[in-house]
Amino acid sequence: MKKFMDRDFLLSTKTSRRLFHRYSKNMPIYDYHCHLNPQEIAEDKKYNNITEVWLYGDHYKWRFMRSMGVDEAYITGNKSDKEKFLAYAKCIGGAIGNPLLHWSHLELQRYFGIYDILNEENAEKIWNKANKIIEGKDFSAKNLIKKSNVALIGTTDDPCDDLVWHKKIRENKDFATKVIPTFRPDNAINIEKDSFGEYIARLESLTGTIKSFDDLKDALSMRMDYFAQMGSSLSDHSFADLPFTVLSDKEVDKIFAKGLKNKELTDEEIAGYKTAIMLFLGEEYGKRNWVMQLHLGPIRNNNTKMFEKLGADTGFDSVGDAGTALNISRFMDELNKNDVLPKTILYTLNPNMNYVLGTMLGNFQAGGIKSKIQFGSAWWFNDHIDGMREQMKTLGNLGALSCFVGMLTDSRSFLSYPRHEYFRRIMCDIVGTFVENGEFPCDEKTLKEIVENISFNNAKNYFGM
Amino acid sequence: MKKFMDRDFLLSTKTSRRLFHRYSKNMPIYDYHCHLNPQEIAEDKKYNNITEVWLYGDHYKWRFMRSMGVDEAYITGNKSDKEKFLAYAKCIGGAIGNPLLHWSHLELQRYFGIYDILNEENAEKIWNKANKIIEGKDFSAKNLIKKSNVALIGTTDDPCDDLVWHKKIRENKDFATKVIPTFRPDNAINIEKDSFGEYIARLESLTGTIKSFDDLKDALSMRMDYFAQMGSSLSDHSFADLPFTVLSDKEVDKIFAKGLKNKELTDEEIAGYKTAIMLFLGEEYGKRNWVMQLHLGPIRNNNTKMFEKLGADTGFDSVGDAGTALNISRFMDELNKNDVLPKTILYTLNPNMNYVLGTMLGNFQAGGIKSKIQFGSAWWFNDHIDGMREQMKTLGNLGALSCFVGMLTDSRSFLSYPRHEYFRRIMCDIVGTFVENGEFPCDEKTLKEIVENISFNNAKNYFGM
Amino acid sequence: MKKFMDRDFLLSTKTSRRLFHRYSKNMPIYDYHCHLNPQEIAEDKKYNNITEVWLYGDHYKWRFMRSMGVDEAYITGNKSDKEKFLAYAKCIGGAIGNPLLHWSHLELQRYFGIYDILNEENAEKIWNKANKIIEGKDFSAKNLIKKSNVALIGTTDDPCDDLVWHKKIRENKDFATKVIPTFRPDNAINIEKDSFGEYIARLESLTGTIKSFDDLKDALSMRMDYFAQMGSSLSDHSFADLPFTVLSDKEVDKIFAKGLKNKELTDEEIAGYKTAIMLFLGEEYGKRNWVMQLHLGPIRNNNTKMFEKLGADTGFDSVGDAGTALNISRFMDELNKNDVLPKTILYTLNPNMNYVLGTMLGNFQAGGIKSKIQFGSAWWFNDHIDGMREQMKTLGNLGALSCFVGMLTDSRSFLSYPRHEYFRRIMCDIVGTFVENGEFPCDEKTLKEIVENISFNNAKNYFGM
Repeated sequence: MKKFMDRDFLLSTKTSRRLFHRYSKNMPIYDYHCHLNPQEIAEDKKYNNITEVWLYGDHYKWRFMRSMGVDEAYITGNKSDKEKFLAYAKCIGGAIGNPLLHWSHLELQRYFGIYDILNEENAEKIWNKANKIIEGKDFSAKNLIKKSNVALIGTTDDPCDDLVWHKKIRENKDFATKVIPTFRPDNAINIEKDSFGEYIARLESLTGTIKSFDDLKDALSMRMDYFAQMGSSLSDHSFADLPFTVLSDKEVDKIFAKGLKNKELTDEEIAGYKTAIMLFLGEEYGKRNWVMQLHLGPIRNNNTKMFEKLGADTGFDSVGDAGTALNISRFMDELNKNDVLPKTILYTLNPNMNYVLGTMLGNFQAGGIKSKIQFGSAWWFNDHIDGMREQMKTLGNLGALSCFVGMLTDSRSFLSYPRHEYFRRIMCDIVGTFVENGEFPCDEKTLKEIVENISFNNAKNYFGM
Repeated sequence: MKKFMDRDFLLSTKTSRRLFHRYSKNMPIYDYHCHLNPQEIAEDKKYNNITEVWLYGDHYKWRFMRSMGVDEAYITGNKSDKEKFLAYAKCIGGAIGNPLLHWSHLELQRYFGIYDILNEENAEKIWNKANKIIEGKDFSAKNLIKKSNVALIGTTDDPCDDLVWHKKIRENKDFATKVIPTFRPDNAINIEKDSFGEYIARLESLTGTIKSFDDLKDALSMRMDYFAQMGSSLSDHSFADLPFTVLSDKEVDKIFAKGLKNKELTDEEIAGYKTAIMLFLGEEYGKRNWVMQLHLGPIRNNNTKMFEKLGADTGFDSVGDAGTALNISRFMDELNKNDVLPKTILYTLNPNMNYVLGTMLGNFQAGGIKSKIQFGSAWWFNDHIDGMREQMKTLGNLGALSCFVGMLTDSRSFLSYPRHEYFRRIMCDIVGTFVENGEFPCDEKTLKEIVENISFNNAKNYFGM
Repeated sequence: MKKFMDRDFLLSTKTSRRLFHRYSKNMPIYDYHCHLNPQEIAEDKKYNNITEVWLYGDHYKWRFMRSMGVDEAYITGNKSDKEKFLAYAKCIGGAIGNPLLHWSHLELQRYFGIYDILNEENAEKIWNKANKIIEGKDFSAKNLIKKSNVALIGTTDDPCDDLVWHKKIRENKDFATKVIPTFRPDNAINIEKDSFGEYIARLESLTGTIKSFDDLKDALSMRMDYFAQMGSSLSDHSFADLPFTVLSDKEVDKIFAKGLKNKELTDEEIAGYKTAIMLFLGEEYGKRNWVMQLHLGPIRNNNTKMFEKLGADTGFDSVGDAGTALNISRFMDELNKNDVLPKTILYTLNPNMNYVLGTMLGNFQAGGIKSKIQFGSAWWFNDHIDGMREQMKTLGNLGALSCFVGMLTDSRSFLSYPRHEYFRRIMCDIVGTFVENGEFPCDEKTLKEIVENISFNNAKNYFGM
């Protein structure tokens, strides 16, 4: 029997262990997509206790606590930080088969040197021990990043963002990690939202008058220029399902005008507008040699009551099942026809889509770049042993796993970097198992290259930031 | 090599074996959903031969025989019981990889003490041996239930049912197993059926005049009261895909009036009516602290010719692929907004929906109860090693496996209880394997609690009947 | 550690190894569906170098090279054959987890006696060694087929095909392998295509005037008669999603008239026409005791730019996600109602559909034939270890794996027969593992029968050609 989460955690073969310990674990981290707050990095944020750094804002943990029947007061409510920590400690033992059990203990091990298994009995002791470490001057946002050997962080930012904190971070010469903004123009795309007109007005204040759809395009281009100045060549989008309804420029202009005035739009109009703006953005990304990320599949804010109480990103999102293979194909084809299809990463929240996306890649690969179209890492609800295995096995079966740009944290927390370790252990286990089973040659040079590339080099070369 | 279906069947690790033999297998059975006939329990039904108790009414076996090319005469036709048994014996050897092979032999082992592997050669001998046991006075419905250590049985019943057999069973003080009716109002929901008007008339005869949709609600409430008097706090529904089309009360009333007169209805009208009645029922369940079961995904009676010959539930049903994530979300959200969302179990016939349902739970969990929203056990076509593993692994990855209410037989046969044993072996194997791989701590107290809870305690606490 | 692709490749248990080496590998090959060119067989085609026989026309390999970033010039472009071979050699090492790695090396092993692992360094040596073998007089289409122990080949042919090469092959008495045409009437079905009228004119020239839909039916019947004379009792169809829209004969006739004149048709009209012709064809197949193959799920030619350059079947196809469970059910039910449902094989490109198809079978099985409705082998993008395992495990769980007609190459290359070996190793590993785990009895006679049947006998009996 293997000890719980020991040195060889998840590494089931000798080759897997060698590949991880000798090569993969030593590579830096290229965390190209996360939701860290750049201000907290710039200001080198400190914490008062483990609840603040570990449970605040972590809706994965909240969601699990709710599944265990914990009262909301102990999750997002008015109980004390200590009571919240004790509540989490009490229910984590029920997380059998859940990645939270592993993430939580990896975080305790790596950042606090705590190798105990958290439970109700030792919670008090661990609360004290962790808080002592948090008090120390080495426990701060920047130090956590440094300790984790992070080469690059890609944050997620609105086009209107002034990126002042990114600037501040760059000016600090003692901090080697690159922190790069990502262009995420949801607010300019979601024309059906009440806040659309207001948002365009805000954009206008930065770029000049926006009366027509063409004006909007100009404005977004200017902001892309600004993001590029700040070192970015990366965008991000999320869709429950990607629309593809091509309308005339005139029609799109009319819809845009209606959206500005917050008038009711039909589904067709919304799809037509979104298609138009996505084709424009895709083309811009292609021309600029940016990377376009498409996160497909979530249904957000399913619980209206809790949304009204806590807002978005609080643990009430879910996997959707809208079929979109044809739309994705048509969207990419349209850009490709005009030779402006950018490097693209396709992520899905529904593992049912693995074969749709895993084969879509192959339709638009191009010479001169290793896997120009990428199948994004197992995302969010799939971010566990089975999901990551499935995503990598699918990519192997359908495309070039060896060219995969690999893992990202997608996280709001400075303690999430062990998710890269988790991923690398699983990846090395897959590769090592292939070798031990006689399904891949035992050629050390090739194996070293493959695991180092998937751990870091592929991402570095692909994004080139 | 392991012997075929021996003591340690399906238990691949030492820890798995210990957990099963020491804890899980000794727990009573809480069979909260089945299709047993309460009259047969009340009358303590006896059988003439193994075909009667084993093959009559078991459409799983019929379906497999058809796949093996067996003539219908030997399945539901006019061949003798012995000929039917021999026909099954002849083809069961072809059931490699099929749960029927395992269920059949578990049943032979547990109820007949027969450890031979059934085949054409020994069929005659087994026919005789089994029939001798069936002749004995201990072989009857109630004795089979007692022998199987069943604490509770939830049957499936129409709102118009007088539940007279449930009463009779309760009056018998020598029979300790609780037999509880489940409220399954399909006939009041399926307004598109020719028999709808007739059914409402039958309901009317029990509850008073039903002229409007409000009258129908009152009538169903009265029947729920009656079911509650009989110890029930459980309902059940089945949908190919759950509708969600909200219409005004006036519109619903009009549709109901048309349905009563058996007039043609549009898809929109049918969806509108079903949404209205499901929202009403959901609210009633919530107010009464009942459990609502939603069985999603089947396409029934695909073979019109055989349906006309044999009727429903004869082995001609199939897995559907209608996407319904958004409807399920909206339905539950609507009830939740008004604080009347009941405890709910979501089952799917299509394993593609595992991630949709497995994440839907998390949107509506609530404090004070362990996993108020449950992901129902692998159901019907998924009721095998791979399907059950997948369901439990998914639940583990996405929610709280430790709070799972576990297995049910969903069966029409008194010999189906070994399916609980089958489930428990698989569950203990998953848990034991996590431990042996270092993915879960080897803490005996916690492990005992987890496997006993999933085997029995969680269901007992959740249903509270 | 197992050596890379040695004698026991993919055979993880002792029983698996015994079953493969003792029984399965010695069975002949019944390759009932492929895309070989019968002219090349008749003329006993010879090759100039390994690129010609190995890389020309193999869009699986092209697609992978594109994923590795290889320039199109080295794939379908104007680089020399040797440069193309070197380009493939250079990137095959990146195919970790991809079946191409295994197929390529099986082909090198079986047809060239090359046991090296192809890479950039040894590419020159292998190029020379392979070309020397290709020069030999034993390296020709017919000899490759003979060497592979192929009993039957089912090609894929248009109804207008004169089948002259099939005739020539039959006349050659020295060549024992049967080469049978398959009726694939896509061109008569795809009424939405610009070439439809032209195609009907061509058909007309062979069968007499086609003015109405009834005339078309007569013409297709005549061609079926002709195919039957040539030994065929097999058809094939491919649909992204199967339509089912029943219109009146008069309406279908009108739509057909519009199609002949190349007029724009609505989606409804296209679906109505396709439904009508498929119901007619299904009925004809049923009456003639033919086999109907339905290949469901692909989205073809996603990359317009490359389609315009290279045409169809060049590696730009993809997995679709259109839901069709209900249509498939209705189509089969309609034929079944009239007792003309033919033997049918349902294939899917999207493994999401495995449970839909795997259960659909059971709705229409019939006495007197082992699994009249078959779940087709893992196809195209699923044609790898995980996909084949999944398909066979699903079939086992839901139907009768022991009656499975097994593997086909679906290939354009004379070197693809090792895919049968690949399949058989995986199949024997599944069966052997069941036995070793105590999940299937260790009865040598039954096991021999099962693996020999799935390897060859089931197909031979089922197709009866």
